[in-house]
Amino acid sequence: MIYFNFFVSRPTAVNLSDAATKLQNLVSRTAETAKDAKSIFQVFIEAAEAMLVDDVADNKAIGSHGAEFLQRQLGSSRNISVLTHCNTGSLATAGYGTALGVIRALHSGGVLEKAFCTETRPFNQGSRLTAFELVHDKIPATLIADSAAAALMNNGQVQAVIVGADRIAANGDTANKIGTYNLSISAKHHGMQFYVAAPVTSIDLSLPSGKQIVIEERSPKELLNSEGGLGKQVAASGISVWNPAFDVTPANLITAIITEKGVITKSDPNGSFDIKGFIECAK
Amino acid sequence: MIYFNFFVSRPTAVNLSDAATKLQNLVSRTAETAKDAKSIFQVFIEAAEAMLVDDVADNKAIGSHGAEFLQRQLGSSRNISVLTHCNTGSLATAGYGTALGVIRALHSGGVLEKAFCTETRPFNQGSRLTAFELVHDKIPATLIADSAAAALMNNGQVQAVIVGADRIAANGDTANKIGTYNLSISAKHHGMQFYVAAPVTSIDLSLPSGKQIVIEERSPKELLNSEGGLGKQVAASGISVWNPAFDVTPANLITAIITEKGVITKSDPNGSFDIKGFIECAK
Repeated sequence: MIYFNFFVSRPTAVNLSDAATKLQNLVSRTAETAKDAKSIFQVFIEAAEAMLVDDVADNKAIGSHGAEFLQRQLGSSRNISVLTHCNTGSLATAGYGTALGVIRALHSGGVLEKAFCTETRPFNQGSRLTAFELVHDKIPATLIADSAAAALMNNGQVQAVIVGADRIAANGDTANKIGTYNLSISAKHHGMQFYVAAPVTSIDLSLPSGKQIVIEERSPKELLNSEGGLGKQVAASGISVWNPAFDVTPANLITAIITEKGVITKSDPNGSFDIKGFIECAK
Repeated sequence: MIYFNFFVSRPTAVNLSDAATKLQNLVSRTAETAKDAKSIFQVFIEAAEAMLVDDVADNKAIGSHGAEFLQRQLGSSRNISVLTHCNTGSLATAGYGTALGVIRALHSGGVLEKAFCTETRPFNQGSRLTAFELVHDKIPATLIADSAAAALMNNGQVQAVIVGADRIAANGDTANKIGTYNLSISAKHHGMQFYVAAPVTSIDLSLPSGKQIVIEERSPKELLNSEGGLGKQVAASGISVWNPAFDVTPANLITAIITEKGVITKSDPNGSFDIKGFIECAK
């Protein structure tokens, strides 16, 4: 018997778990009739490569739907500035990005004035990864501390916030990197649009709301030491730490969810989304 | 002629500039009749020491007024948990603290369940200084990333936010460490009290509102490198940075201003403060 061991994805990331399950099932089915390990490996590689092609196409569709929708909603022709959080680009997804895919599409469409990215403490995915991608792509971009977001919005320097998602519940409640919920509240306070961009594989219709999403808590070292916990001790010795990796943004703070199949909106701006209805219509 | 050179305080910190001006005037007056530098120095040291005694007494009065007011407002007898930002303790003030003075008073009164402190990016005054003071004083305390504040509030882990002030305008608008405005918006969203604790020397009645407060912008290195800019490069090369040291929290998001002369409240919870009226009554 050939035994396969797949990495288990983090609890929030339903799209990764979905992809791993699909590949695992494929391998199990193939193993029932395969003559040798090599042929199973070949089937696995082909499926993974097809998945990559599909994922990039999905990301590009998210970018294109999002850029079109933002231009329509924000009503400005050539000067959209947006704030994003964490990394949702080619370093986190399949090669183009979700929220960063929308930013890329706005930029290539010539309507992006500037992208702001948060540092994204404590693991600095914003300052390390998103900043890298923005500089690499020559997209006008500025890095801010997470805590400077409200001041940035108040200064009128951004028109909207766009983030990715680790898991989206059936009503639209969205688990994403810690700090996303903070940004959604500030956006609401400033009358600003707040968009989530994610593939439909990030939607988990088995969860009625975000209350059922389990939040991963990470090592205190990420806050106690520099460089995500690997560097020198920075914080005072003996302090206890609460370090949740994600938070849940309720649907009522989200303007729209941008997917590869189109943009999910809601009839009541302060209500929730009918994602099941959207997916059924999009089939 | 004897020439004295005083340090110039940062633009927002009106209490430091006030103290420096008082000492400068005293030295100038003394120098007119003094026989030698030593006697001027003696006058200066005595005045500075008297100032220190007064400042500690003022801090303790802030702590006592604040602890009493919070207990009355929060209506809980023995289980108050608060969130604070930046450092407002003995390392930033004269030996007891303003917002941290209120936390110390709640703790010594036996009614503090826990103090939460933010990391306070990018210079980590929270994780380095406030955390140190809380551990030193054996106050139950937990450190969080700035961006985790809204999730903390939503989990019901804190009942109020209490911060210091660099400068308070006549209407109560308050300049304080970047991120304070973020916290005030989240507190409002969660129906939570948001207190400012500061000596009356932090009030600048010459400014009608926070719009006139000049915000200091600091070096990009604080975000680009670890350890407040002194450590290894963390962020991607070439990214531009916006690093304001402060933001302004409008009076309508502040529940009360706790001073050594008592607590300044307002008749309309969503309105501004009549600080001039309060100070005249307190004379």
